[in-house]
Amino acid sequence: VNPLVGICMGSASDLPVLRRAADALDRFSVPHEVRILSAHRTPHRMVEWGRAAAGRGIRVVIAGAGGSAHLPGMLAVETDLPVLAVAVESSPDPLNAALGSMVRMPEGAPLATMGKGPAAAWNAGLLAVRILALADEGLAAAYAAYVAELAGRVAGDDARLVDLGVDAFLDERG
Amino acid sequence: VNPLVGICMGSASDLPVLRRAADALDRFSVPHEVRILSAHRTPHRMVEWGRAAAGRGIRVVIAGAGGSAHLPGMLAVETDLPVLAVAVESSPDPLNAALGSMVRMPEGAPLATMGKGPAAAWNAGLLAVRILALADEGLAAAYAAYVAELAGRVAGDDARLVDLGVDAFLDERG
Amino acid sequence: VNPLVGICMGSASDLPVLRRAADALDRFSVPHEVRILSAHRTPHRMVEWGRAAAGRGIRVVIAGAGGSAHLPGMLAVETDLPVLAVAVESSPDPLNAALGSMVRMPEGAPLATMGKGPAAAWNAGLLAVRILALADEGLAAAYAAYVAELAGRVAGDDARLVDLGVDAFLDERG
Amino acid sequence: VNPLVGICMGSASDLPVLRRAADALDRFSVPHEVRILSAHRTPHRMVEWGRAAAGRGIRVVIAGAGGSAHLPGMLAVETDLPVLAVAVESSPDPLNAALGSMVRMPEGAPLATMGKGPAAAWNAGLLAVRILALADEGLAAAYAAYVAELAGRVAGDDARLVDLGVDAFLDERG
Amino acid sequence: VNPLVGICMGSASDLPVLRRAADALDRFSVPHEVRILSAHRTPHRMVEWGRAAAGRGIRVVIAGAGGSAHLPGMLAVETDLPVLAVAVESSPDPLNAALGSMVRMPEGAPLATMGKGPAAAWNAGLLAVRILALADEGLAAAYAAYVAELAGRVAGDDARLVDLGVDAFLDERG
Amino acid sequence: VNPLVGICMGSASDLPVLRRAADALDRFSVPHEVRILSAHRTPHRMVEWGRAAAGRGIRVVIAGAGGSAHLPGMLAVETDLPVLAVAVESSPDPLNAALGSMVRMPEGAPLATMGKGPAAAWNAGLLAVRILALADEGLAAAYAAYVAELAGRVAGDDARLVDLGVDAFLDERG
Amino acid sequence: VNPLVGICMGSASDLPVLRRAADALDRFSVPHEVRILSAHRTPHRMVEWGRAAAGRGIRVVIAGAGGSAHLPGMLAVETDLPVLAVAVESSPDPLNAALGSMVRMPEGAPLATMGKGPAAAWNAGLLAVRILALADEGLAAAYAAYVAELAGRVAGDDARLVDLGVDAFLDERG
Amino acid sequence: VNPLVGICMGSASDLPVLRRAADALDRFSVPHEVRILSAHRTPHRMVEWGRAAAGRGIRVVIAGAGGSAHLPGMLAVETDLPVLAVAVESSPDPLNAALGSMVRMPEGAPLATMGKGPAAAWNAGLLAVRILALADEGLAAAYAAYVAELAGRVAGDDARLVDLGVDAFLDERG
Repeated sequence: VNPLVGICMGSASDLPVLRRAADALDRFSVPHEVRILSAHRTPHRMVEWGRAAAGRGIRVVIAGAGGSAHLPGMLAVETDLPVLAVAVESSPDPLNAALGSMVRMPEGAPLATMGKGPAAAWNAGLLAVRILALADEGLAAAYAAYVAELAGRVAGDDARLVDLGVDAFLDERG
Repeated sequence: VNPLVGICMGSASDLPVLRRAADALDRFSVPHEVRILSAHRTPHRMVEWGRAAAGRGIRVVIAGAGGSAHLPGMLAVETDLPVLAVAVESSPDPLNAALGSMVRMPEGAPLATMGKGPAAAWNAGLLAVRILALADEGLAAAYAAYVAELAGRVAGDDARLVDLGVDAFLDERG
Repeated sequence: VNPLVGICMGSASDLPVLRRAADALDRFSVPHEVRILSAHRTPHRMVEWGRAAAGRGIRVVIAGAGGSAHLPGMLAVETDLPVLAVAVESSPDPLNAALGSMVRMPEGAPLATMGKGPAAAWNAGLLAVRILALADEGLAAAYAAYVAELAGRVAGDDARLVDLGVDAFLDERG
Repeated sequence: VNPLVGICMGSASDLPVLRRAADALDRFSVPHEVRILSAHRTPHRMVEWGRAAAGRGIRVVIAGAGGSAHLPGMLAVETDLPVLAVAVESSPDPLNAALGSMVRMPEGAPLATMGKGPAAAWNAGLLAVRILALADEGLAAAYAAYVAELAGRVAGDDARLVDLGVDAFLDERG
Repeated sequence: VNPLVGICMGSASDLPVLRRAADALDRFSVPHEVRILSAHRTPHRMVEWGRAAAGRGIRVVIAGAGGSAHLPGMLAVETDLPVLAVAVESSPDPLNAALGSMVRMPEGAPLATMGKGPAAAWNAGLLAVRILALADEGLAAAYAAYVAELAGRVAGDDARLVDLGVDAFLDERG
Repeated sequence: VNPLVGICMGSASDLPVLRRAADALDRFSVPHEVRILSAHRTPHRMVEWGRAAAGRGIRVVIAGAGGSAHLPGMLAVETDLPVLAVAVESSPDPLNAALGSMVRMPEGAPLATMGKGPAAAWNAGLLAVRILALADEGLAAAYAAYVAELAGRVAGDDARLVDLGVDAFLDERG
Repeated sequence: VNPLVGICMGSASDLPVLRRAADALDRFSVPHEVRILSAHRTPHRMVEWGRAAAGRGIRVVIAGAGGSAHLPGMLAVETDLPVLAVAVESSPDPLNAALGSMVRMPEGAPLATMGKGPAAAWNAGLLAVRILALADEGLAAAYAAYVAELAGRVAGDDARLVDLGVDAFLDERG
Repeated sequence: VNPLVGICMGSASDLPVLRRAADALDRFSVPHEVRILSAHRTPHRMVEWGRAAAGRGIRVVIAGAGGSAHLPGMLAVETDLPVLAVAVESSPDPLNAALGSMVRMPEGAPLATMGKGPAAAWNAGLLAVRILALADEGLAAAYAAYVAELAGRVAGDDARLVDLGVDAFLDERG
């Protein structure tokens, strides 16, 4: 099957975070490809991939980066597909370079920032699903079921906490 | 015509920024509606609008907010459509409350942050166009033409600067 | 007994911090309930709880949240009771999203921010006691006794440090 | 009439911000007093006022401060009444000293931070009303009416914007 | 012997940091006292100590604090002696509350901030020595000898590094 | 008369801020000198001045700087006198370079940071007075009188505000 | 004459800042070219220019950018020449996106950040001169003369201030 | 062989970071020296080294520092050689003192900031190579080979990831 979503990162070290985007897509059976393309080390492979993406049937790009975070922004320039950015920072960074860079794209170069870390990568996968679901009713229904499942889990926790009280509830969770 | 994009904000004072999103959509003749719905003052109107949006044919939501920035996140919860957030801050805010809040949505509640201010609002309009163009070849072509136009403008500036030199170039621009 | 204080959080993972608010209320024998209500996953349960709170006899709401921190602000909108916010952030967050969002509520939507982490949760419990003590002289007396106890403990430490000197004092504390 | 709320600040230069708290209380006809008491210049007057406040019938304290912001925290120590803090900073302060200090009170010294500037001062007045309304049904009703009025104003703006469109709406507002 | 320097902190938990100030004074045989005086829990003991300090022969005050950091500023108000502030923060604090509060004292209430943590506490001890040495030639000579000793240690490291090369030098230091 | 305090800055553009330190010293008739010595442009003049200061009878050094702020720290190294640093930043600087650099001096190189801007410069002058007053009873008495004067001014404002009410008080001040 | 330094920026609006780099080069008669090449709008022109630069005799690249700041980093990848980055931010940016991005380049992609604004652009010109002077003794002598001139100007200001005193000195400068 | 690059730091504790600059130079067989010279403890040795560097044949200076970071800036003043700064901070520093100080050098004192930590030190070594390669074709060729090697490694990772899929790829890397 042709991938509908391309997940790109500049280094294998970003994969543990970005794989959460792939996991989200897997949950909804959305075909995708995962690629290591570095804006700093393989700029021309990155450009080629970006330019070819739409023609290959890809419809949404998810790009993760840390530090200077050039990959998401440069991909947003090389393709006209929607590009979703995920910040990856292995150590606490008070300058917040990656996030700060992503949310400051100039007029004319739109980039959608999803946040930082694994939760943001998962959410990038979900936003890709929301976009693809615009043209796929089955996917829209699956997404609605997922939302209901999340709600049920929280409601269940609440009921259990009310039943058990704080101490027993925390004990049960270990 | 039915709106395809809904542009929401919590207060009329956000309109000068958010109108740039509407301007971007107008440039591509994308029908849209602009609404004032406050998460803090009219929470129930906001909920109703969010829940009804998909059914009314809206496909992308753009939501602007400053300060605590509840509107974009709560709309992302009330609808399963893609929601694009634009930060609006009238005064310098070292805590960057609105941006900081937008990029920290929890797992399961995806929100796409476009940045802060008029350029981010314009880019939100452009990202909506990129999403809609996935199912509209004419729109895709129009977008590609826009990108080429931007490139031409920069190349023209470069040529003029090389011709005139710094001083004359700056004089000409006034 | 009817709860006088409602302690809400969006996820069971916030409970180790928020339980400190319950502990503070327990110390003064103030009846309370602890609930898991997510602004992002169970928005309608949150709205219902907020709207019903005053009618059920609740007089103060304590709401904890991390990240985008929508729960405290949305509860402050759904009820006219005083709402006290506690930031919960499991990892260091240079953007300080939760705190930053809490202290930027717009005019007309008052929210009282108590700080971040377990000490802030304890202080939220204490502030609830201060509010309830306005109409309960016994509670006011209990609070004054607590303040005196804290003072006594510090004065005792000071006397012990003066007696023992720095090294022996630190040795004694281990 | 005896004041129910005391509004304190360290300098006359804070009055243009803090008066918004007084304005909010005036709107609900809540008697209050406004005082200039400096933690740095008149520490003993501050202590005396704080210790006497509850006995004089005051039930809520609102304290504004900029910079090192000692006044709200020290008042929270000298009285057992609920104390609401408002940050006042005349120039942009990247360190956010006043806010940062307010939200970091130690365990045992609860202080409720309302935010920074005139909107936060207004909200401090509103939170005082919420607290007083716990024991005053008329005040609770007046507060509910105020909330409805705010909602009506936003709904009116929304309707007008839908009617007029963006350009005419902005023209009308000038 | 009468103490010439008073080292104050609000809690025994600050002692591991502040004791470095005492260590610096011990190195120069400057008599000092170390006290636990809390601005939040024992405000009146703090005031009394501050007011009596000069009369008891104390000439420099070193005050450590974390979080809201009221102790150094309030002591600077209760005495006319020079007061040196040391920030103590057990966990990373992106708001830098203690430091931020210390460097924002208002006009008329001078406070000298030495920095954060053990090195700053040591430097506070050194600055107290510099002040006392203005009236004590022996102390001035001892300080000059200390500076020479530090210089000798660095010059020795440099010579050893040049001799051994990077790898052997790092091996030797383990 | 021999100067007792040396006020140094790296550029004439810092003088409008640093002159406030001189003004504070003038108020107490403390002789001082004001010098332009740049760590970056005249490093050797700076070194010479620093090394000679104590021998010339100077007892306290006040050093102002913006940006990289090398002057205060390098002077603290070239002299063993107490050195008080004042940050001068003509434009808002979110990195707070000058302040941040001043409060991070390494162990063994003590520098006392007074804050940023004219109020901090005035406070640097006051701290110099506090240090000199340790050996000058007349100066100590003058300082105490100044503190009383400040207190009187605040108490007067408070009395006037209570008399007039908020509106008339603000009108009177214009 | 062939340019030895290439000064690049993404938009004509950056020229008022970047021209200061050209001014510095002009002062030392170093031939240079000034170009508008956008990483976001003309990525392929940027790539071509970067790849050809060394072959055309350019030896140092100065690149200015604001916001996401992709231009300096991408040029550092497309050429092996030394690249000096200058941040340009027209409005205060608490996230400091451009600077933060520049100083976080990954291992293997060196970029030298000179700072923000016109002074940093001037310094970029000076650093280019320092690099070129390694192979040009005349340029090295001219640079040394410039340093001496700066020192002379500061020493002159100092002498004038000592002569005139603060008030007259400030009057003279207007 | 005479060193072409001088690598300086203020303390042996900075060596584990700065040695990465030496490692980068070793990779290209560029002779260098590594020195411990403290701006705060051995200021005069630092000045002497800086003034003599060019005469001894050194062509590029790399200087590492944490905290107040005076060493790189002062070396940039004592020599006219290009100076590359590397920030070294052992603990997370929300004020980012070292980086913030480095990027705020005043006009006339150029300093090139490479970033923070070991990757920045490695990049400082690479930038020194780029500068030296301007006059050494063999070095330029070696650098180009290094860039190709990096690209090959990333392309290899990408191919392997495409072959194996995410799980097997992560397993293989352990």
